[in-house]
Amino acid sequence: MNLESTLLLIDLYELTMLQGYFHEGMNETAVFEFFIRKLPKNRNFLLAAGLEQALSFLESARFQAEEIDWLACHGFRREFLDWLRDFRFQGDVHAMPEGTLCFPEEPILRVTAPLPQAQLFESRIINLIHFQTMIASKAARSVLVAPGKELVDFGLRRAHGAEAGLYAARAAFLAGFSATATVLAGRRFGIPLSGTMAHSFIQAHDSEEEAFLRFAEANPDRAVFLIDTYDTEKAVRKLAALTPRLEERGIRPLAVRLDSGDLGAHARRVRRILDDAGLTGVGIFASGNLSEERLQELVAAAAPIDGFGIGTSLDTSSDAPYLDCVYKLEEYAGKARRKRSEGKATWPGRKQVFRQYDPAGKIASDLVALDGEDHPGEPLLRPVMKGGERLFSPETLLAARERSARGLASLPEELRVLTPAAAPYPVRFSGRLEELRRSLDRVLG
Amino acid sequence: MNLESTLLLIDLYELTMLQGYFHEGMNETAVFEFFIRKLPKNRNFLLAAGLEQALSFLESARFQAEEIDWLACHGFRREFLDWLRDFRFQGDVHAMPEGTLCFPEEPILRVTAPLPQAQLFESRIINLIHFQTMIASKAARSVLVAPGKELVDFGLRRAHGAEAGLYAARAAFLAGFSATATVLAGRRFGIPLSGTMAHSFIQAHDSEEEAFLRFAEANPDRAVFLIDTYDTEKAVRKLAALTPRLEERGIRPLAVRLDSGDLGAHARRVRRILDDAGLTGVGIFASGNLSEERLQELVAAAAPIDGFGIGTSLDTSSDAPYLDCVYKLEEYAGKARRKRSEGKATWPGRKQVFRQYDPAGKIASDLVALDGEDHPGEPLLRPVMKGGERLFSPETLLAARERSARGLASLPEELRVLTPAAAPYPVRFSGRLEELRRSLDRVLG
Repeated sequence: MNLESTLLLIDLYELTMLQGYFHEGMNETAVFEFFIRKLPKNRNFLLAAGLEQALSFLESARFQAEEIDWLACHGFRREFLDWLRDFRFQGDVHAMPEGTLCFPEEPILRVTAPLPQAQLFESRIINLIHFQTMIASKAARSVLVAPGKELVDFGLRRAHGAEAGLYAARAAFLAGFSATATVLAGRRFGIPLSGTMAHSFIQAHDSEEEAFLRFAEANPDRAVFLIDTYDTEKAVRKLAALTPRLEERGIRPLAVRLDSGDLGAHARRVRRILDDAGLTGVGIFASGNLSEERLQELVAAAAPIDGFGIGTSLDTSSDAPYLDCVYKLEEYAGKARRKRSEGKATWPGRKQVFRQYDPAGKIASDLVALDGEDHPGEPLLRPVMKGGERLFSPETLLAARERSARGLASLPEELRVLTPAAAPYPVRFSGRLEELRRSLDRVLG
Repeated sequence: MNLESTLLLIDLYELTMLQGYFHEGMNETAVFEFFIRKLPKNRNFLLAAGLEQALSFLESARFQAEEIDWLACHGFRREFLDWLRDFRFQGDVHAMPEGTLCFPEEPILRVTAPLPQAQLFESRIINLIHFQTMIASKAARSVLVAPGKELVDFGLRRAHGAEAGLYAARAAFLAGFSATATVLAGRRFGIPLSGTMAHSFIQAHDSEEEAFLRFAEANPDRAVFLIDTYDTEKAVRKLAALTPRLEERGIRPLAVRLDSGDLGAHARRVRRILDDAGLTGVGIFASGNLSEERLQELVAAAAPIDGFGIGTSLDTSSDAPYLDCVYKLEEYAGKARRKRSEGKATWPGRKQVFRQYDPAGKIASDLVALDGEDHPGEPLLRPVMKGGERLFSPETLLAARERSARGLASLPEELRVLTPAAAPYPVRFSGRLEELRRSLDRVLG
């Protein structure tokens, strides 16, 4: 069973509801939209991501015969299960392309399909788009505060499982990171790989010199040395003394890595030792409990650090480990629908988002309107799937990464900060949408 | 490619280090230990979990031929890659069984194997044990504050990817949850499934009565009704009025679900309406942004709620979305090893943990000692794998769940609270271990 494509990775209620729709023959067209209800405290914008995985899932997800058999023993009816055998997604999808800036209450993805098809995929669509959108948005903060620095995803080990590790690497690269340490992300997505040695490599040798020399002999093109296992400054002096022997073997030391202590202070001392030894071309790379706030401090202090490895805080989005996002029914059988639960009411109808820019090319305001309304600005939702088939071949990850870069460049200054902006980005709603909401409230009483 | 068992889900440095070890012929026995450096702010204990998945991974992980070919194009040498073709884990593992209470600085798992084998699996072993230990420890907090309540995992949609959703269900059940909504977790692990309907099911119908009736007809054994889509109290009155028609069809309403607003106040009003209608047997189930703190408040206020669905806060461990855990080299080629990086120094040597209980059966203190030392108390690390083969058949999840229950029952009162305990649980170190650490510091200077 392939964990990424099994249709059993859903909530039970999707199946009980489908059994209800099947029982009633409810198969008319439904419109569901995925959106974020509100931003976490420390986010002034989000970057949409994960669409590619959601579309792949919609294309390929099928029930396997043995899954159907298993469901037969768990309270589902035979005629319903027979109908599930050939079940596949045949609907339409509109979505913001990956790397698009997005804001609360804006649909990021809209599914238009027969009700059971639009319903069944709810949990996994949320699961896929939520995670990468959260990680891309987190990664963008580091990208904004450390321009020109090499940023590397180091987070696999504390990511929440296999898929989180893999997709965090993708989302971070999409947002502007340079590379990842996760090998599978290199293979699957073509992301550049980065990595050197752990402390255990140093410890397993009887001396740091020996460890440095043997590592470089075995990996001559990846001669980056971890220098904090015992004493950072002593280690870099050892490396300087060793360099003639490395050069004899045709090996050029590329960089050193700091992983503990006061990274700024160590970097300054290490830079001086390297420069005094004539090793001006050897870079300094830092890691160890880094966050975008710490990056900002180090950059502001002009610490001589060329690149950063960011792990746990990135892959878990530790300051905001979830987004308040939902996938909600907005229309069924031609009628707009509205949920009015306390604190969780929704905007009804199928919607589009129009974005306006100021003369300097910065984003100025968004308008959420009903689909089919005509407004100035760039419409953000585009058709990407029709009748269950993709309208375009999959976009390259580099194209999405370039869209992120253009998006980040279009952010006004007040949204580029790590702390909450004084005023949120303006998202408005069209008069016709407001009127539809009021009219539904009158009907629902 | 199976995401759960591919050996490419590792950090690049595992491979560069292995190329180094291969180059040098470093193949002597290494001992690595996995442990938590310190507890997150709101945790007074942890529950070890994830061992079963780690052992399965060690048993089955192999490089695929096409993975080797891919590595050949990414800077690895042909003779090293030839050696990787037959690479598999043939070492020994000692571990705390799943569901064991554990504390900082205590090895939860110890790997003894030729250095390259013990090194290569680092990232994925951490990834697997970290996540389930974090989630089981989070779930245990709800179990402690809501005794006798039905607790259900609802978190798939905002879990960090597929594997997180699946394993969160497992870890929560292991810690004492009753059920999960994640269908695949039912199939994979035999966990009881729970689930009813979403708001979209109600919204897609022209009236709530219609939605309730049709759902129950299609799912007569799962007649649980979501009542907050428009107006909670009105909906429960509609259900009461509908009940005779349901009973005519042989359907007994089991429960209602609240999902928004002041859950305690709604539950009291709903309970009264149900009781007044003679529906005393219909339970009340609550969900919606729940955390263990909110559960504690609702239980303290004697809210008439029979069960809780807990989603995002559980599956993301939102108040502590990572543990500060590591997998460190403690011995190589018969010599104890110690990392001394600032703030990250380790205890050297292969270790055992002895736990002592007070006369009432509560845990009293732990002692971390060198393996082979003799101390009173229960030794917590047990041999589970030898020469790459499991020593026992996989433990059932129910057995691990019972161990968790015994562990939670053995917690002293001061550790059972949701806030930080006044004093941490005492973890001491043996005199011989202290002496080994000092002697290594003298050698390292």
